[in-house]
Amino acid sequence: MKSNLAPLGPKADKATVRRSNLSLVLRTVRDEDEATRAGVAARVGLTRAAVSSLVEQLLDSGFLTESGKTFSGQAGRPGTALKVARTGPAGLGVEINVDYVSVCAVDLAGTDRVRLTERLDNRGVPPADVLARAAGIAARALVRAHAEGLRPVGAALALPGLVSGGAVRQAPNLGWNQVPAEGLFADALAALSADQAPLPVSSENEANLAALAELWFGGLGTVRSFLYLTGETGVGGALVVDGELVRGAHGFAGEIGHVVADARGPRCRCGSRGCLEQYAGQAALLRAAGIDAAGGAAMAELERRAGAGEARAVAAVTEAGRMLGRVLSGAVNLLDPDAVVLGGAYRGLMPWLAPAVDEQLTAGAVSGLWSRDSGRLRSSSVAGDAARGAAALVVRDVLADPVAYAPPVTGRRPARADA
Amino acid sequence: MKSNLAPLGPKADKATVRRSNLSLVLRTVRDEDEATRAGVAARVGLTRAAVSSLVEQLLDSGFLTESGKTFSGQAGRPGTALKVARTGPAGLGVEINVDYVSVCAVDLAGTDRVRLTERLDNRGVPPADVLARAAGIAARALVRAHAEGLRPVGAALALPGLVSGGAVRQAPNLGWNQVPAEGLFADALAALSADQAPLPVSSENEANLAALAELWFGGLGTVRSFLYLTGETGVGGALVVDGELVRGAHGFAGEIGHVVADARGPRCRCGSRGCLEQYAGQAALLRAAGIDAAGGAAMAELERRAGAGEARAVAAVTEAGRMLGRVLSGAVNLLDPDAVVLGGAYRGLMPWLAPAVDEQLTAGAVSGLWSRDSGRLRSSSVAGDAARGAAALVVRDVLADPVAYAPPVTGRRPARADA
Repeated sequence: MKSNLAPLGPKADKATVRRSNLSLVLRTVRDEDEATRAGVAARVGLTRAAVSSLVEQLLDSGFLTESGKTFSGQAGRPGTALKVARTGPAGLGVEINVDYVSVCAVDLAGTDRVRLTERLDNRGVPPADVLARAAGIAARALVRAHAEGLRPVGAALALPGLVSGGAVRQAPNLGWNQVPAEGLFADALAALSADQAPLPVSSENEANLAALAELWFGGLGTVRSFLYLTGETGVGGALVVDGELVRGAHGFAGEIGHVVADARGPRCRCGSRGCLEQYAGQAALLRAAGIDAAGGAAMAELERRAGAGEARAVAAVTEAGRMLGRVLSGAVNLLDPDAVVLGGAYRGLMPWLAPAVDEQLTAGAVSGLWSRDSGRLRSSSVAGDAARGAAALVVRDVLADPVAYAPPVTGRRPARADA
Repeated sequence: MKSNLAPLGPKADKATVRRSNLSLVLRTVRDEDEATRAGVAARVGLTRAAVSSLVEQLLDSGFLTESGKTFSGQAGRPGTALKVARTGPAGLGVEINVDYVSVCAVDLAGTDRVRLTERLDNRGVPPADVLARAAGIAARALVRAHAEGLRPVGAALALPGLVSGGAVRQAPNLGWNQVPAEGLFADALAALSADQAPLPVSSENEANLAALAELWFGGLGTVRSFLYLTGETGVGGALVVDGELVRGAHGFAGEIGHVVADARGPRCRCGSRGCLEQYAGQAALLRAAGIDAAGGAAMAELERRAGAGEARAVAAVTEAGRMLGRVLSGAVNLLDPDAVVLGGAYRGLMPWLAPAVDEQLTAGAVSGLWSRDSGRLRSSSVAGDAARGAAALVVRDVLADPVAYAPPVTGRRPARADA
């Protein structure tokens, strides 16, 4: 039903077209991993000469590298293989969650090149202190990124709450309300790396970023529309339709943890009753399993007990799966996604969660198109996490307009990869 | 977070560009109601000469008309006003619902020019007979459309169920299962109008089409993302995000009537328990109000009784509103739409429904951004209904590529509107 009715608009000027084509060529090489000029020209529909000129500029600015021969191993005259540079512009992703902070630097190819994760209890700590801690970890990650020849051009924060306009409106599990996270983090990071130009900082809900990481780096295959759930301390959610994140009118879409599973249920931190989080959040799971602790170690213990067949642990996870499945049935009826992806701590619990979730969905999806064999319930890939999604968001901006991120001084072309 | 990363693709040839520009000019005149050649040129960024040539072709093919003067009433040399033609290509919309069939013909301007609605009880009637009845009404509408100088170029069916690939997979309230609706309707219509070329027939869920009609013809103002509910015999739903219908992986998105409001509730026709339809569908509403009848007349009686302050009627509508609000709270947490629009029979019940719905949403929307004063709960416009949406879908195809719908023989330019 979609038809292209957007106005064509005035003609773009030459410089704008060239910028756009530089992005197109760079993204084409990235998508193909390795490409020749001729291959790029065929793919994008520009002349070989135009592509060569664009490639020269991208090589000069350090966005691409080339080697003297292809790696196809076939006989004949070797081509010249283009690749995106493993050095130069990069994105920094900073996930701040209830019980950990994870920072990574991602290069133009999307590879996670630097990773620092620290277990921390961020509950009850003043937000400015949490953000200062995260900035400390980020500063160390920056040093390591620079040592690898990377030049992070921006940082993106992944935060477990309602994020909008640079601030956290509400993050119940952190106890945050109206926290200007971007500004606090940027100031703390600038103070720690005064010798460098300040990094632009953006922010986004962590489930949204984990979903984008799953889309970009996970094993979703042809799936372009899915609902993503993070089983962290809270139950985060995100919605991707046709490969695009649905952010909602205020940026608050995806809050499946606060969809009511049972209106007669226990009171939730959000003020409602019987929210999904009260049944399928980590605290509820651990309580039901009789594990008197919190955080990653406790969740690992739950996995161990369920794996050993301990009845109480299995029952706790199964009941969480039943409530997840109940709420997901409603979401599937509303959205008809290709798939539902369970991430975070749910990944390790899939053997006991999945049957209960699938049973509810098979009964509740009105289309009749859900079954245990449909393969529509998936575990998230380990390759996708919110920090990587955040960093990749910065990289996506670079790929969309490399000229804006060219090196500050005219750089010399880097040495050939095989030189 | 959206950035334009689509490949630019090969250059379009001249004929393709002209076709696209014909569409652009036609849509621009349609959007502005009335425009001069100079105004169109300024708006679309093409030269005055190019626009004049495109306008000539659109006048010759009967898509545009012009008058010798503008109607601005201002002094000075009058301009030549272009308008989309009130004759020529049109769309036929055919809504088949449980207790009525409504057919309309919509012209290029989107105006509902012919309308035939019949109250019919379609329950228990074989699907082929229902579709034949609808074809009979459509055939009469076609005769009237031709008499008005309209030339319907396609028919679209609006159907209350899961519609995909030209067939109704399931329409519980009609009792339909796997009904090849497009084919049955097209054959029946062709048999009734054997003297004419057969009309191409398409089909879509009625709530989806009602939502599009609301988007195109309703009073939504700047709202581009909303959830639309039809209060018919069933509770249909549709989801529009950024001005585009979300159809889902199989075309079955929007089934809010089968989102579970209470897992302990009564059994639903779909096989689940406690679906929203069991509380807010017309049958449930009438039963709760003690009205032993069905259909439009019974709903009018419910409105009358609620308006007279009859306690049982008010309580029935309020309770339906409470359950609607409960399910909508979950949907709003998931989707964060600009607005929720209640259509169909809900429109007349808004005085009693709205307070209950708003109360639930105010308590349940985790963003804290729902309140009775937020204006986010709306009644649908009378201007938008599924039949008009269906017809407008056909018109949209014409506007997207007028060349494909030019008159079969080279037409003479129609007389000037003021001649």
